Amino acid sequence: MKWSEIYLKTLKEKPAGASIPSHILLLRAGYISNTSQGIYLYNSLFLRSIQKFEKIVREELERQSAREILMPMVQTKKLWQKTGRWNKFEGLLLKMKGRTGAELCLGPTHEEIIIEFVQSGLNSWKDMPLNLYQIQTKYRDEIRPRFGLMRAREFIMKDAYSFDTSKQTALENYKKMFQAYQNIFNRLGVQFVVAKADSGAIGGSHSEEFHILAKKGEDELLVCDNFSANVEICPRQEPSKSSAPTPKAIEEFATPNIKTIQELAQFLNGSAKDLVKILFFISQGDSQKANSKDKVFAVLCMGDDEINPLKIKQNLGLKELPLLAKDKTIKEVSGANPGSCGPYKLKQNIPIYLDNYLKNKGNFITGANKDGFHFKNVNPNRDFKVSAYGDFCFAREGDLSPTSLALKKYRGIEVGHLFYLSDEYSKKMNLTYLDKQGKKHFVEMGCYGMGITRTLQAVIEQSHDDKGIIWPLSITPFAVYICLIDPDSPEVLKALDKLKTLLDQQHLDYFIDDRKERPGVKFKDADLIGLPLRIDLGVRDLKNNQIEICIRKNSFKEKLNLKELENKLPSYISNL
Amino acid sequence: MKWSEIYLKTLKEKPAGASIPSHILLLRAGYISNTSQGIYLYNSLFLRSIQKFEKIVREELERQSAREILMPMVQTKKLWQKTGRWNKFEGLLLKMKGRTGAELCLGPTHEEIIIEFVQSGLNSWKDMPLNLYQIQTKYRDEIRPRFGLMRAREFIMKDAYSFDTSKQTALENYKKMFQAYQNIFNRLGVQFVVAKADSGAIGGSHSEEFHILAKKGEDELLVCDNFSANVEICPRQEPSKSSAPTPKAIEEFATPNIKTIQELAQFLNGSAKDLVKILFFISQGDSQKANSKDKVFAVLCMGDDEINPLKIKQNLGLKELPLLAKDKTIKEVSGANPGSCGPYKLKQNIPIYLDNYLKNKGNFITGANKDGFHFKNVNPNRDFKVSAYGDFCFAREGDLSPTSLALKKYRGIEVGHLFYLSDEYSKKMNLTYLDKQGKKHFVEMGCYGMGITRTLQAVIEQSHDDKGIIWPLSITPFAVYICLIDPDSPEVLKALDKLKTLLDQQHLDYFIDDRKERPGVKFKDADLIGLPLRIDLGVRDLKNNQIEICIRKNSFKEKLNLKELENKLPSYISNL
Repeated sequence: MKWSEIYLKTLKEKPAGASIPSHILLLRAGYISNTSQGIYLYNSLFLRSIQKFEKIVREELERQSAREILMPMVQTKKLWQKTGRWNKFEGLLLKMKGRTGAELCLGPTHEEIIIEFVQSGLNSWKDMPLNLYQIQTKYRDEIRPRFGLMRAREFIMKDAYSFDTSKQTALENYKKMFQAYQNIFNRLGVQFVVAKADSGAIGGSHSEEFHILAKKGEDELLVCDNFSANVEICPRQEPSKSSAPTPKAIEEFATPNIKTIQELAQFLNGSAKDLVKILFFISQGDSQKANSKDKVFAVLCMGDDEINPLKIKQNLGLKELPLLAKDKTIKEVSGANPGSCGPYKLKQNIPIYLDNYLKNKGNFITGANKDGFHFKNVNPNRDFKVSAYGDFCFAREGDLSPTSLALKKYRGIEVGHLFYLSDEYSKKMNLTYLDKQGKKHFVEMGCYGMGITRTLQAVIEQSHDDKGIIWPLSITPFAVYICLIDPDSPEVLKALDKLKTLLDQQHLDYFIDDRKERPGVKFKDADLIGLPLRIDLGVRDLKNNQIEICIRKNSFKEKLNLKELENKLPSYISNL
Repeated sequence: MKWSEIYLKTLKEKPAGASIPSHILLLRAGYISNTSQGIYLYNSLFLRSIQKFEKIVREELERQSAREILMPMVQTKKLWQKTGRWNKFEGLLLKMKGRTGAELCLGPTHEEIIIEFVQSGLNSWKDMPLNLYQIQTKYRDEIRPRFGLMRAREFIMKDAYSFDTSKQTALENYKKMFQAYQNIFNRLGVQFVVAKADSGAIGGSHSEEFHILAKKGEDELLVCDNFSANVEICPRQEPSKSSAPTPKAIEEFATPNIKTIQELAQFLNGSAKDLVKILFFISQGDSQKANSKDKVFAVLCMGDDEINPLKIKQNLGLKELPLLAKDKTIKEVSGANPGSCGPYKLKQNIPIYLDNYLKNKGNFITGANKDGFHFKNVNPNRDFKVSAYGDFCFAREGDLSPTSLALKKYRGIEVGHLFYLSDEYSKKMNLTYLDKQGKKHFVEMGCYGMGITRTLQAVIEQSHDDKGIIWPLSITPFAVYICLIDPDSPEVLKALDKLKTLLDQQHLDYFIDDRKERPGVKFKDADLIGLPLRIDLGVRDLKNNQIEICIRKNSFKEKLNLKELENKLPSYISNL
């Protein structure tokens, strides 16, 4: 492919509206073009990267017996009402009315429609296991589309759905998909992390995310050698056991105008980690009685920890995220305003949960439930009843993972997500099968997403420098950038023919910069576009029977003749 | 791929709502599944056919230097207003409102957005020629979606857009696309016809359609060895010259209660072709004066011909299709009601056009412009002025083509359409370039559509029998249907391994029916699904060291051993 045959205009300046490097570089290199908010057009070079990546995805999924189909993008309200998601998905569903008045939407995910597809024929245990996937342009009406393809409204996604007769076989299908994902990102040649994750709006119990690591990634990950998780749900091990201190007598002391843990620490000339924090929550979701007092509970943790409502939900088995109690409720329950509350001498009897890090600790400094006063030497089970200990706080870098290794912080971009759904959707849509004994059961499902266009941008976010993109060989639009220094010279064109033959023989694809531009302009564009290898053909070098090769990632340059290039090319390539 | 790995349920009965064979067979074979009106899901087998066809399309387009991009499906009202098509395209545009209130639509064709894409950088004559295409799921809000994928709302289409500096180079790009289309349909291995066509709503002057021939095709085509056209616009040659008859004196005669040409022919014991038909039209489009009398004109033709308003428009150079005059206007102009009108003694002086087939003819029998009376021996230029002769009627089977051969009638399904657009769109959207002298011009464009899913169904419409589909090798989901008669038998599985090795070596893909069903059920499904070759592996035959091969298109069957199969397979394949 020649530059002159495609539409490609590079930009010197940072385009307006782009903030992270990958977005800026995609626009500057002309790979994508913004047509409206959150919507992009892909040029010929970028589409090649997309197609190369899709080929890898297809190969690895097919290897795990997942089979491709293609589902419609336009779907009906009637279908989405079956799972109650017509309203629940609300904001992200782009809704419209067809000419016959039918209410329609663009599919942002395809659980409903695939269940309807298999419903009439998935009758027997013999019809499973089954794993179907598609690669498709999807649309989500994002509130604030940003970061280019990272959070676009229109994007290409691979989504897969598995159907099984039991949890055991469903988890086997899940494992096969996990293997496929690992193979895919290994073949991409990028640094990635698999993190335990929350299953969020999709539902289900098992859930893991694949993240491509990048300094400006949206997600924070905590990683050790044999464990990793999204900070949103990352568990942490209890500190090693120590014996609790001998409880001392409670003392009340005045803490005038002190509202926060930081202020209290300063007042006491101590640090926050020596203090104890209390937060009041209201559990919601079971009934409309969410505001009634018996739903209020308190959680205590170390003063320098941060309580994580998602972990409270998971570890207390709540149906919904607990809400922070309002000041009015706090005052009713404790007798004081926030900042002066504590577990001892509460006005009302509510459940009190303690973070594991408070185990075997005592003589806490806490609020006295009287504005402007605190207690010293409050002790669990002597002064208040502990409903339970648990893992309720965000893990931090340095904390121990469940496998007892110190966690390290990374930032990542979520590019794949695996969910074990159990029978959540099959129950809602009544997807059943008969077992060997003729007994009816709900089908066990899993669903597996992977952002195609998002992954490509994430790769760039990980792999670039000041000059431009640095494509890994796996998904580069072309392996080689052939720069014709003198595009009109017959010698150059003759050398080009020979070079093309050589590259064809070595199964390397190439992009030819045949523009009538100064070499400096071409080299800059080559760096920006970021193909792994550049080969320059110029009259001056060719007179000495030489061509120049330049490796994008380390700027290594070498002049050699065609025969030498032929011999060395395999080793250049294997080191990319 | 094995049957047990995909979701595939065949139907014994004709599904409701399907009328033409290809639609019935696609549904019965489980290739497609209807999810809502005019919207279909493609199963794993059909998607393979789609992908094989797309590969052929890509290869042939790239060979002609067309380069692939991918444009957004969701587009803005603002964009579509630039060409005035937001309202003009009205019914077929599926419109919606995004969450920020932006008015959007699903792209049914992509002229607007591609012009906007290239607008900022297509500045110079050096940037052209350029030809960009995409393969994409499109949506048209069809009033009456029908015939399955033939006229679906959601469908896959290849659309290409060329940009040139002159009409000459634009037509070169057009010719290259023509060549690509011919190569594509030749590689498909189907019978097709290229027909001159009307350029319709898209605009432009040159236009050709590619049709796959099929008995129940929507379009009528007239074809001879070196010319073909859609009946909508098919020109016909004048009959060979004869000397006009000697004009006789006009005679008036009573024709009581005679309204139609057929009634008149019967009354005179003659045939319609000896009579002359007159129709009155109103030319429209130039102004609001469409109803004013000076726009009325008459067209005369042989009594058994049918006047074609599209050919009148083209051959008289009108801007819009002429409308048939209403009875009131006819009476004002002629003095009589329709059925008694003629060119002689009209009340008003209007232009009168004659079809070429009336050249060198005379002594016409025509209406006398007096209800219930006709004239004999009316002669052009003696009794009325002929404004012009022209080709104004539908051509019919047996008429001469412009290349002087008799035209034959076929029915076809339009699967591809080439348009030379000239500067129609570039003018509307101000797409200009500077020539070598720095002078500004509008860019010359062409656009080229091809229905991907439509073509696949058209192929089936051409190639099927009572038992099911007969895929051509080019786009069959798999070349070979391996039918395991005894899927649990170790001998069968051993033979399967050997067979797979052999097929892999010969680069033939295969689909394995591993269901526990009776052989009769499997054979019926195999015929329905329509892969070109079936190979049966059963215990009984394997005991005699034999396997059976069955060719779908002619039901040829043969039992042979593996070695014989290996030798014969290439000749089987080459005869498919």
